[in-house]
Amino acid sequence: MTDNDVFRTLNQPKPWSGYNAFHSDPLLGDLTRNLARPLREEFDTIGRYVTSPEAQELAQMANASAPQLKTHGPAGERLDTVSFHPAWHALLRRSMSSGLHSSLWEPPRDADSKSKAHKLRAVRLFLTAQLECGHLEPLSSTSASLAVLAATPQLRSEWAPKILSRKYDSTNRPQAQKTAATIGLAITEKQAGSDMRGLATKAVRVSEGVYRLSGHKWFVSAPMSDAFIMLADVDGKPGCFLVPRLLDEGRTNALRYQRLKDKLGLRSNAVAEVEFSDAFGFLLGAPDAGLRTVLDMLTLMRLDSAVMASGLMRAALAEAAHATRGRNVGGRALASQPLMMRVLADLALDVAAAGALCFRLAESFDRARDSAEEAAYARVMTPVAKYWTTKIAPAVVAEAMEAMGGNGFVEDRPIARHYRDAPGLAMHDGAGNMMALDLRRVVEHGSDLFEAVFQVIARDLGASGPKIVELLRAAMALCKSHESAARIFIEQLALAAGAAELYRLGAGRIADAFLETRLAAGWRSTYGMLDTRFDASYIVELLFPEMD
Amino acid sequence: MTDNDVFRTLNQPKPWSGYNAFHSDPLLGDLTRNLARPLREEFDTIGRYVTSPEAQELAQMANASAPQLKTHGPAGERLDTVSFHPAWHALLRRSMSSGLHSSLWEPPRDADSKSKAHKLRAVRLFLTAQLECGHLEPLSSTSASLAVLAATPQLRSEWAPKILSRKYDSTNRPQAQKTAATIGLAITEKQAGSDMRGLATKAVRVSEGVYRLSGHKWFVSAPMSDAFIMLADVDGKPGCFLVPRLLDEGRTNALRYQRLKDKLGLRSNAVAEVEFSDAFGFLLGAPDAGLRTVLDMLTLMRLDSAVMASGLMRAALAEAAHATRGRNVGGRALASQPLMMRVLADLALDVAAAGALCFRLAESFDRARDSAEEAAYARVMTPVAKYWTTKIAPAVVAEAMEAMGGNGFVEDRPIARHYRDAPGLAMHDGAGNMMALDLRRVVEHGSDLFEAVFQVIARDLGASGPKIVELLRAAMALCKSHESAARIFIEQLALAAGAAELYRLGAGRIADAFLETRLAAGWRSTYGMLDTRFDASYIVELLFPEMD
Repeated sequence: MTDNDVFRTLNQPKPWSGYNAFHSDPLLGDLTRNLARPLREEFDTIGRYVTSPEAQELAQMANASAPQLKTHGPAGERLDTVSFHPAWHALLRRSMSSGLHSSLWEPPRDADSKSKAHKLRAVRLFLTAQLECGHLEPLSSTSASLAVLAATPQLRSEWAPKILSRKYDSTNRPQAQKTAATIGLAITEKQAGSDMRGLATKAVRVSEGVYRLSGHKWFVSAPMSDAFIMLADVDGKPGCFLVPRLLDEGRTNALRYQRLKDKLGLRSNAVAEVEFSDAFGFLLGAPDAGLRTVLDMLTLMRLDSAVMASGLMRAALAEAAHATRGRNVGGRALASQPLMMRVLADLALDVAAAGALCFRLAESFDRARDSAEEAAYARVMTPVAKYWTTKIAPAVVAEAMEAMGGNGFVEDRPIARHYRDAPGLAMHDGAGNMMALDLRRVVEHGSDLFEAVFQVIARDLGASGPKIVELLRAAMALCKSHESAARIFIEQLALAAGAAELYRLGAGRIADAFLETRLAAGWRSTYGMLDTRFDASYIVELLFPEMD
Repeated sequence: MTDNDVFRTLNQPKPWSGYNAFHSDPLLGDLTRNLARPLREEFDTIGRYVTSPEAQELAQMANASAPQLKTHGPAGERLDTVSFHPAWHALLRRSMSSGLHSSLWEPPRDADSKSKAHKLRAVRLFLTAQLECGHLEPLSSTSASLAVLAATPQLRSEWAPKILSRKYDSTNRPQAQKTAATIGLAITEKQAGSDMRGLATKAVRVSEGVYRLSGHKWFVSAPMSDAFIMLADVDGKPGCFLVPRLLDEGRTNALRYQRLKDKLGLRSNAVAEVEFSDAFGFLLGAPDAGLRTVLDMLTLMRLDSAVMASGLMRAALAEAAHATRGRNVGGRALASQPLMMRVLADLALDVAAAGALCFRLAESFDRARDSAEEAAYARVMTPVAKYWTTKIAPAVVAEAMEAMGGNGFVEDRPIARHYRDAPGLAMHDGAGNMMALDLRRVVEHGSDLFEAVFQVIARDLGASGPKIVELLRAAMALCKSHESAARIFIEQLALAAGAAELYRLGAGRIADAFLETRLAAGWRSTYGMLDTRFDASYIVELLFPEMD
């Protein structure tokens, strides 16, 4: 080594960019094989975009320069606006142009777009989450808001054209003057947290469908949205409202932004604390049916969170696999050393099962109208998939990050951000215990739905189906008699359904390893426990093939 | 509710400060019960300090205002200094005054300080880690450096008086002009990562014990330290050196700071990338024995990392227990709802076992000189405790954070910082796979050490001892034949030893629950799986008693 060499950067992996996130994912290949060519070409384009150095730089900048609250203008006038880095707008512009907020509700372009709208959107979301999750939050709530707006057709017909527009418009004007509108969700209150019944916000009726709202919201995501879906107390019952940020004349609708949350992750997106007196709100659905109305929105957002968590884990592990392949220790790639390979393989099993489970859930949303079995799957498995995929994400990303050594702990690369973002996805739109309790409510209301779901799972599991279903029944019985056992049941259901879907996708050896280590093996609290019967190298190469 | 009430902050937990971290920890009470009164009073003072609002504000500020690199001065001259927030200096001043960097090496004040030096220091470190881990990094390396300086008595006698001083001195002057000196560790190189053999830094002999070093270091922790312990290649072999930052005349010793790492966590402390040409270095030990010399230092730092991770987990769960007690949902404290209580209890078992394991390890360091059994325990269990406690920390903190709802995701409270810091402790001074491979090296060199450790564990486990040791033997055999099974063995050893120590401390019911769920139960990948046989409320109340 010459003196000059001493300062050169050797034996460091090349930047993890410029590959194709769609092509490098064999599971996604299986899932989309029978789709029309234009769709696969679209995924291909997204797959290339999300790992391009340009997009990665946008993601980095949008998170490094967190949004700023402007409470007042130069003359002391109230502004209540938030300014975002241009990179944030660039990310939104691109993702809106690919219809992440609108595709479910647009007139279908072709047969696949009609019958597989949720699945196709899940693929796009899964790929885009590998780039950046913060900017997906307003798109998720905007898409889901249409389920809620349907409750008041007049509001829907007024807002839907703007919501469905794919042309992002970040100007600070009333909806009527904009090309596009986004919708935020504002339900949490500081005294109530996840308890949506404990509303301090009051709504007073002004005229048919028009109310004035006074109160506060504790986590208002994407505060520059054009309107918010809010809950407020109407004569002792929770009502659901659409609350525009600006009134038609351009004045703010009495929303006073107190401060932005200094968040651990998902920092590109702002979350504000907001107080308001006599803000105008437009009633969605019946004045006492707010909870049910909002739940329709949350259900869609829970699917999104599960898909995003699965994409985020895939991105983290892909980055770690790449980094450990591009670094030699003792003359041999780190990735091919027995212990490291087993860690990567063990992680890959969970990442694959999480992805499979989410796409299967999206499919059940598509088929729910025509099949009672699929409707049951959608109802039962939404909290299950949301629980498990988001819950394992912090540990999965931490382990992938550690595989990269100290480099993983530095914000130069995306993985540290993924680690910060991961717990946010778990807390969003219903944290773990809420998911477990939601599942338990279904258990308490009778087990017909479960019979349908067990049938789906058993069919796909094949030979081991009956034994696994027996396990699930026992866990369900325990969950029924003990609220405290709800997490045991929800996790076992996730594991069984993840394995079942891996079999259905033809990934039999992956499914075997997942099933035998997860549902038939002993306790572990850390990764790398995959036992020596399983071929770790096969698992890693199959699920995370080496890219040139 | 009046209009005024709407904006009031109700049903939010009080800030988690002002209690006593020592008194509120029953395990620590058991561990210290027989110590002399002045020691317990000292712990009491630290316990009060670390949760005081003032100390918490220092911790928050030191992390929010990350250190800044100053490469050049106003006239364009090279500076190569780092400026820290005053809060950083305040934290260091206080922790140095309590001897966290020096107590192992000071003349003992009393019998306990002599025979239990490691254990007493572990208690202080465990408590202080509950406040802030970043500032403990230079104290850990400073303390450990004395193990290395011993290799060259002349250097030791020159530096030790300054290193042992409890009077922090942050001035930028040569050691000879300061009241105290701190020592950093600079071993990682960018092409080598954790592979300490792949050195690009070269050392050329100038005179007896004096060398000139040229090369770079990729992670130089605490770059304002007065000197660094470094490895450099001496004629093809790794030598260990003490490299002062400033020369006696006050000039920098050719260390050029390239940039600071933009770290995910432990942000109060700086980590620099450094290049140097012809920097003076002073040889420690034989010129070809650098690895062994540095390992003595790393062993001490690994114990520290395990203790810090255990303290950090304790702090996170204490905060979550407090927050869930201080918040009602549906008219009932969140902490007392069956599912939440089970999550807290399941977490509490791991937190208790981690703490017990670390203190047991510290005790073995104290007793190693007089007992072959204890020496074996210290050798075998250092990588085990470092592996397990740091490895579970991200998932433990993530789950505790989620118990706090969205509030946990905001940097207003300490827990979000704990989440960011946790993976750093796992990567420090040897990441997970290095620990597992270190354990495997001991396995390969013969099992005498393990016989001794198994005996300790079996004795403390009581009735279940023989069965557990049989399990451990099987895992050890598998680890011997397959490198890839090293993580299975290291985790099982951690679980068994943690349980054993809980029994020895008299926490039998805690140990039962830990052992039966961890070593005798099925797979789980998320918390809250503690099964209904165990009394969750008892576990939480015992380990995290409610404070007024």
